[in-house]
Amino acid sequence: MRVIGIDPGYDRLGVAILEFENGKESLLFSTCIETDKKLNLNERLFTIGNQLTKIIKEYQPDTLAIETIFFNQNQKTAIGVAEARGLIIYLAQQNNCQVYEFGPQEIKIAVTGYGKSDKSAVIDMVKRLVINVPETALDDEYDAIAVSITCLAQYGRSR
Amino acid sequence: MRVIGIDPGYDRLGVAILEFENGKESLLFSTCIETDKKLNLNERLFTIGNQLTKIIKEYQPDTLAIETIFFNQNQKTAIGVAEARGLIIYLAQQNNCQVYEFGPQEIKIAVTGYGKSDKSAVIDMVKRLVINVPETALDDEYDAIAVSITCLAQYGRSR
Repeated sequence: MRVIGIDPGYDRLGVAILEFENGKESLLFSTCIETDKKLNLNERLFTIGNQLTKIIKEYQPDTLAIETIFFNQNQKTAIGVAEARGLIIYLAQQNNCQVYEFGPQEIKIAVTGYGKSDKSAVIDMVKRLVINVPETALDDEYDAIAVSITCLAQYGRSR
Repeated sequence: MRVIGIDPGYDRLGVAILEFENGKESLLFSTCIETDKKLNLNERLFTIGNQLTKIIKEYQPDTLAIETIFFNQNQKTAIGVAEARGLIIYLAQQNNCQVYEFGPQEIKIAVTGYGKSDKSAVIDMVKRLVINVPETALDDEYDAIAVSITCLAQYGRSR
């Protein structure tokens, strides 16, 4: 299983490519796609789709792991994130990925063993669990790696 | 200007292709894409994207006219519709369409001259304004034609 993990957004979008190799999760690539705040939402979705297509074509994952949406933000933000999710999920399927979704609590439990861990605990465990995480990784990348780990833990070893 | 007008949804999605020719709006194609209720949302988004891609490739519109979302439904439905909108807007841009969005009231005003018209008044005016509307058109198709008319009225004649 080669997973593309995504922390969805239209402003900043974390992306990670992970594989389970020799008994350990290994990071092949990660980035944070940032879109220009001067562009409108539709133009930002276009940027996201184009950059994501390039990454998918290059790394050819067979699985998408993506965070679910919660409404603790304002509705306008939630709509924008949902629109981004829709195109991400479509592009992944178009490129032959199975799609799995995980909630924030489920991700924290998979990574740290505790559903209410704070961000630093998640980052700390990601660094311990995964090979090749760059020193320069941003928060959104850690989130994308974390959702990938969750997917590999649940579905990756049984294949 | 050749418009693809869309009444977005993941359960039923109205699609229309309109052009302004010889002083009148002419319908080239319309359909209602219906997705299988037994499929999950991601699979339904995949169906929508694939069918829409075929229609766009065949009719090559240069403009997308799409309805905005309102939160008078439940949140889960709104999220699903937003996810569908995201992929529709992305696919249209990927195929060189300009994107325009219109709210329900704006559409009613453009079609009937009155922002609180009921559905039958909108359908009645669509039939009068547009050439080639089939007798068998469904409500979602009328909505897709109505958003296309709105777009042509605002932007179509100045090109």
